[in-house]
Amino acid sequence: MKTLRHETEVVVRFSEVDSLHIVWHGHYVRYFEDAREAFGLKYGIHYLDVQKAGYSTPIVKVQCDYKRSLKYGDTALVDATFVNSEAAKLIFAFTIRNKETKEVIATGETVQVFLDANKELCLTNPPFFSAWKKSNSIE
Amino acid sequence: MKTLRHETEVVVRFSEVDSLHIVWHGHYVRYFEDAREAFGLKYGIHYLDVQKAGYSTPIVKVQCDYKRSLKYGDTALVDATFVNSEAAKLIFAFTIRNKETKEVIATGETVQVFLDANKELCLTNPPFFSAWKKSNSIE
Amino acid sequence: MKTLRHETEVVVRFSEVDSLHIVWHGHYVRYFEDAREAFGLKYGIHYLDVQKAGYSTPIVKVQCDYKRSLKYGDTALVDATFVNSEAAKLIFAFTIRNKETKEVIATGETVQVFLDANKELCLTNPPFFSAWKKSNSIE
Amino acid sequence: MKTLRHETEVVVRFSEVDSLHIVWHGHYVRYFEDAREAFGLKYGIHYLDVQKAGYSTPIVKVQCDYKRSLKYGDTALVDATFVNSEAAKLIFAFTIRNKETKEVIATGETVQVFLDANKELCLTNPPFFSAWKKSNSIE
Repeated sequence: MKTLRHETEVVVRFSEVDSLHIVWHGHYVRYFEDAREAFGLKYGIHYLDVQKAGYSTPIVKVQCDYKRSLKYGDTALVDATFVNSEAAKLIFAFTIRNKETKEVIATGETVQVFLDANKELCLTNPPFFSAWKKSNSIE
Repeated sequence: MKTLRHETEVVVRFSEVDSLHIVWHGHYVRYFEDAREAFGLKYGIHYLDVQKAGYSTPIVKVQCDYKRSLKYGDTALVDATFVNSEAAKLIFAFTIRNKETKEVIATGETVQVFLDANKELCLTNPPFFSAWKKSNSIE
Repeated sequence: MKTLRHETEVVVRFSEVDSLHIVWHGHYVRYFEDAREAFGLKYGIHYLDVQKAGYSTPIVKVQCDYKRSLKYGDTALVDATFVNSEAAKLIFAFTIRNKETKEVIATGETVQVFLDANKELCLTNPPFFSAWKKSNSIE
Repeated sequence: MKTLRHETEVVVRFSEVDSLHIVWHGHYVRYFEDAREAFGLKYGIHYLDVQKAGYSTPIVKVQCDYKRSLKYGDTALVDATFVNSEAAKLIFAFTIRNKETKEVIATGETVQVFLDANKELCLTNPPFFSAWKKSNSIE
């Protein structure tokens, strides 16, 4: 089984740095989304692909563990790895590193579920997602 | 002719303060919106009222002039005043004061236009807006 | 032992609602911070109190579980409850409810550590925090 | 006299799109800052260069005129052009275009002043800024 992952570069913005001179913790959720979107573009499972298939994938869980901090001038490398699951869920694990020092800054996870066109929760994988997994040699 | 105005209290959030220990300038646009929404609730011209009437009111201009700064722990008073215009526009003038010192922190303006249900620009005031002006003794 | 909790009202802002017409998940981290700051003001353990004592309390963990969604026009009630711990940590549990329907929208947790004036991690509770716990009949 | 300009690519993020399915107007201020920072990195007048010289450059004015909108999936090209001035100010003019259609989405301007190490307003150009202008054949 293949592991699908994608690394995205995020340059720390001035507006993201708080009065302690580090990136405010809430912005990491956006960094995760940046990585998830870049992953989606690369592997054909972007929000717009999901939408075209008639589904939406709201977030039901976010977790972030902060190990070190990022400061203004830093660039982060955000790795998004697809985590396979038997449940009808879209799970990603994230690792944020400092591009220069390679130190791990934070790790995290997001879990998404599938809603169909009627906004009903899908209890089994929607066909487009099963097909996507198959075409990427997952399972 | 009456002047319609409303003052909203905004407590500076930790996440809004930048590494210079002042509120990052971009957040003032949100403070303006907070004041505009509170004005709308009070005078019955909230986004949801506009939407119910079948219109939307996208912003076509924002301006902000910064005189002083706000720091963490400060509370801002944001005054939104309706600016009457012959054009089919929704114009607000804003003044942000420090609640404690009463100093003027910033002034600004937003201009919105009316789009009808087909997302076409309204060249004259939509009926609901003319009625709203009349009922508030404007013009 | 007393349970310390505080409930904060957060009005959903237009800018916080995404194209799915619900509050974007990342904003909940800010709602948690709003509740944590209001709790701190009430119980004398606000960021500014911590800073005055010579410490800072960076976030080392955020978790949020989303059960339902909030839409524009909704008001959220965010409950922050202090979670006592033997470790030198500041832990809060959060519950977000819809003010009108009382439904639970999300639950979550944040964990903070103490850094002293030299930005060194405190392995035991700083004196001001022990004193705060005592004065609030915790432990 | 040379014209200094730099164009930055900004990919619209999911979290930036509002319930009208367009980028919320307040985010354009951040797009301007993205462009200003990229300009600064290219021409050696980045926030960090300014800071190293012992100054800070708070924003005293922001203006944005919105002509069209950006939606999810769009990429914006943000052009930042240095506007020379006899006053001790750092002025940029911005044009945001849709990368694909080349349509102008918005134009805007930011004005910054110089504060010295004592946070006093500089009434004349700080030496590092005069030197920077000279080395770039401005004036």
